[in-house]
Amino acid sequence: MRTVADHLAAVLDAARPVPALDAVLADAAGCVLAEDVVAGHDVPLFAVAACDGYAVRTADVGLPGPGPAPEVVLPVVEDVQVVAPEPLRLVPGAAALVAAGAPVPAGADAVVPLDRTDRGRARVVLRGGAEPGDHVRPAGADVPVGSTVLTAGTRLGARHLSVAAAVGRSRLRVHPRPRVVVLTVGDELVEPGRAAGPGRRPDANGHALVAAARDAGASAVRVGPVPDERGGLREVIADQLVRADLVLITGGLSPGQWDTVTDVLAPLGTVRFDHVAMTPGDRQGFGTVQVADEATDLVHPGGLGAGGVGVPIFALPGHPVSAMVSYEVFVRPALRAMGGHTGVYRPSVRAAVARPLLSPAGLRHFVPARLTGSPADGYLVDPVGDPSKVSLSQLAAANALMVVGEDTTRVRAGDSLACLVLES
Amino acid sequence: MRTVADHLAAVLDAARPVPALDAVLADAAGCVLAEDVVAGHDVPLFAVAACDGYAVRTADVGLPGPGPAPEVVLPVVEDVQVVAPEPLRLVPGAAALVAAGAPVPAGADAVVPLDRTDRGRARVVLRGGAEPGDHVRPAGADVPVGSTVLTAGTRLGARHLSVAAAVGRSRLRVHPRPRVVVLTVGDELVEPGRAAGPGRRPDANGHALVAAARDAGASAVRVGPVPDERGGLREVIADQLVRADLVLITGGLSPGQWDTVTDVLAPLGTVRFDHVAMTPGDRQGFGTVQVADEATDLVHPGGLGAGGVGVPIFALPGHPVSAMVSYEVFVRPALRAMGGHTGVYRPSVRAAVARPLLSPAGLRHFVPARLTGSPADGYLVDPVGDPSKVSLSQLAAANALMVVGEDTTRVRAGDSLACLVLES
Repeated sequence: MRTVADHLAAVLDAARPVPALDAVLADAAGCVLAEDVVAGHDVPLFAVAACDGYAVRTADVGLPGPGPAPEVVLPVVEDVQVVAPEPLRLVPGAAALVAAGAPVPAGADAVVPLDRTDRGRARVVLRGGAEPGDHVRPAGADVPVGSTVLTAGTRLGARHLSVAAAVGRSRLRVHPRPRVVVLTVGDELVEPGRAAGPGRRPDANGHALVAAARDAGASAVRVGPVPDERGGLREVIADQLVRADLVLITGGLSPGQWDTVTDVLAPLGTVRFDHVAMTPGDRQGFGTVQVADEATDLVHPGGLGAGGVGVPIFALPGHPVSAMVSYEVFVRPALRAMGGHTGVYRPSVRAAVARPLLSPAGLRHFVPARLTGSPADGYLVDPVGDPSKVSLSQLAAANALMVVGEDTTRVRAGDSLACLVLES
Repeated sequence: MRTVADHLAAVLDAARPVPALDAVLADAAGCVLAEDVVAGHDVPLFAVAACDGYAVRTADVGLPGPGPAPEVVLPVVEDVQVVAPEPLRLVPGAAALVAAGAPVPAGADAVVPLDRTDRGRARVVLRGGAEPGDHVRPAGADVPVGSTVLTAGTRLGARHLSVAAAVGRSRLRVHPRPRVVVLTVGDELVEPGRAAGPGRRPDANGHALVAAARDAGASAVRVGPVPDERGGLREVIADQLVRADLVLITGGLSPGQWDTVTDVLAPLGTVRFDHVAMTPGDRQGFGTVQVADEATDLVHPGGLGAGGVGVPIFALPGHPVSAMVSYEVFVRPALRAMGGHTGVYRPSVRAAVARPLLSPAGLRHFVPARLTGSPADGYLVDPVGDPSKVSLSQLAAANALMVVGEDTTRVRAGDSLACLVLES
């Protein structure tokens, strides 16, 4: 029996960040940056007006003072469009109409906003004076040339794409989203919505695990349900390996005569099956496989997986609750690590337990539970239903997994336990 | 001048949930459920084995007791595949080999796990006895028929799709993701990465706002940059309105001669432009527009927007910091409401301010800031750079927006302020 900690360590050891590549901005969103981004030029390139108004020399309009607002009249010599065909120069004793964002003509050192003018087009009345720099955003005000605007490791959200675009980048070097293939195995599985005859049941894991992988920042495709037949399963896995950074299989794990997945995976690589000291989800398959090139029968360089360690492959138990808990505990951290994320674990909080419960000795017990409260007031956690009989209904109604340690067999009301906060 | 609260109220009044529709499970992920899901049958349909083992009558194997484990030998009469062609019945005085998940034959009332047997195929040695129900999951153990497994308003994550599939649903009634069109306007805008000539700059808003809208659960497309030209812009907006639940325009808002967006939107509907008492982002356009049917010149029923109030349209300021702050304060809550989410606001925490700052009277001041700390230890917030000079660099380096109220002009170190936590 392997501990949860040992199994997780083995998983994370094999889950290397997917090698970085250049992605267009649209594809880079949500990925982790794999380079520092340094501004190659000032943003803005030239001094620009911070608002609509008249660009002036402060010497011509006077300084703002405590007395009545001085009023000057200047001829309007220019009408500066945002896109100026060439740099303009303001002659002394004149004003130029400028739009917000338009370059301030050389010679001008301030902008008087429209609402302190009579908005004149040939000549303009300007009130209140101006100090040098008023309503002017100098070159580099947003981003000075040479500054590092984004650092490697940043998960690219909207504001990061905004600054990358502003410094003129159309592509960024990122860890791409890991490509996950979700494969459900079992003669008994039918497509949800199809009639489930005797001994048949809908595939509850396929869509759920695809959604879970996407929520972790991966891209995912669903394959199956695939029958419990060795030849066919071997072929499907070989086909999928060429496009996968990680393969996620559920079902087909029985140690009796039905252990299709065990038989198929054994010769492919280092996949091993362990009883892990946890409940639900005690039987876990994990390892890495190399992708062979069909033509040469050699290992394909593109199929070595991230860091040349092979493609991680998980064989999770088939029961949907076991599968989902196993995903949360082992697969999700692996996917986050492969995406280059620094935080690989879900947020976890400590909460006071609402009801006493018994927990099996020697096993880490993950209990579907409702977490309520707030950081300020503290959290309360209440198992959904009977914690000794884990069911899909409980998982669906839960918003957290309460974690009862291996050495704890009796939890009292009010005890404080760690809880994994599931997405809502 | 309109307050932030008044403007937000007007926005939320127009942002009705997008009408519900039936979506396949793959598309329903991440959407908000618009129906209660009730189980039409038990899950599992019949009693199934909870582990691999031998189905027995407890009368034949004896009860577990404190003494030495009783041992019995029974003939193995069946080998129950998971997919049984017809219901089986166990005769008295015999055992049936069953895989985890396989139906337990009628007559059997317990399963003895493999590791308490000699794994015999013709006859099997069973140790330790069994109590009725041992290692059997009765019909309905996961989901009893008639139970409500999901309630309207649930945001569909992996575990919800799992239970929906298990009860046989291939489609769910959901509020679909609002479809957002992001339109950037300005003669000065070029595609990021293209050469930016005099007075030209890369479009920093397009990709960023698409990413922001997707992060809020919307689907989004980017259109533009579109030149500052009334005829062309009118045509682009008309084209996009037919496929939009919400239109997001940035730039083209100058009140001088360049106010293309103002002119184009004015005749289309109820769009109004307000100075909103906030910084950055004081000038905001918002309203709803009806979509006319080209052929009949009548308002198209599909273009009335959610709830028949018209398609919400935002005209945000063009500077990327103003655009992004305006998005966070007004657009994101609208998108969340349109997606049917009950929580429309970002998480907000109170934090102690690290440095004193001055803030303009009468304006709500959104300051890009770094938030550190934890719920347990409390939070500290530090403005990025000089709060009086907001820049794109600051926004990119921030992980929160510190909110200084309209009546606060002086913030002291240690004061507690609300902070919007940005996505990381």
